[in-house]
Amino acid sequence: MSATGQPAQTPEPPYYAVIFTTRRTEGDRGYGAMAEKMVELAARQPGFLGIESVRDPATGLGITVSYWDSEASIARWKANAEHRIAQEAGQKLWYADYVLRVAKVERAYGKPA
Amino acid sequence: MSATGQPAQTPEPPYYAVIFTTRRTEGDRGYGAMAEKMVELAARQPGFLGIESVRDPATGLGITVSYWDSEASIARWKANAEHRIAQEAGQKLWYADYVLRVAKVERAYGKPA
Repeated sequence: MSATGQPAQTPEPPYYAVIFTTRRTEGDRGYGAMAEKMVELAARQPGFLGIESVRDPATGLGITVSYWDSEASIARWKANAEHRIAQEAGQKLWYADYVLRVAKVERAYGKPA
Repeated sequence: MSATGQPAQTPEPPYYAVIFTTRRTEGDRGYGAMAEKMVELAARQPGFLGIESVRDPATGLGITVSYWDSEASIARWKANAEHRIAQEAGQKLWYADYVLRVAKVERAYGKPA
């Protein structure tokens, strides 16, 4: 559930991944606080399974992958009122560029013990 | 095709994503050179569509997403001889933990112009 330092612990596939690849504009402009808030808010949504988020401070490129039980849960999260405000600020202020991909995770494995 | 600073330019879905989330061990141990080599090698494989790779130096968490035209291309890349050597070193030396997920990208959109 946390977005800090660990691969997300997700159930057996199938489930969905939202791969959000972004390039930040210069300066914070309120981004850091909102990003943290959105992770907390996402984690409280129905169907949320986990999130992984990494940004390279050197290049400004970031990848956030959130995991969901269904397309319906992803659609609900996209329509969330607070999230919509963040999406708009993302377009206008925070992201020089982004690509969002919705994918169905078909198989997964971890490091052998 | 590059893994530096830009979202990958991929064709219209459907296509496949390999989401490789890793936590590095301490120290380089040859990782940097091999990681760079593997990106170059992956980019020359049949069916390769693009790659995005980010690591946060502060937490050691990294996410690399490579994009492929089919499951068959992913299987071939997994079986590549040089890549297998890297996979083994990954397990033994470089990664404290990892999760690899194979997902079918069903839809995608970028930042509106």
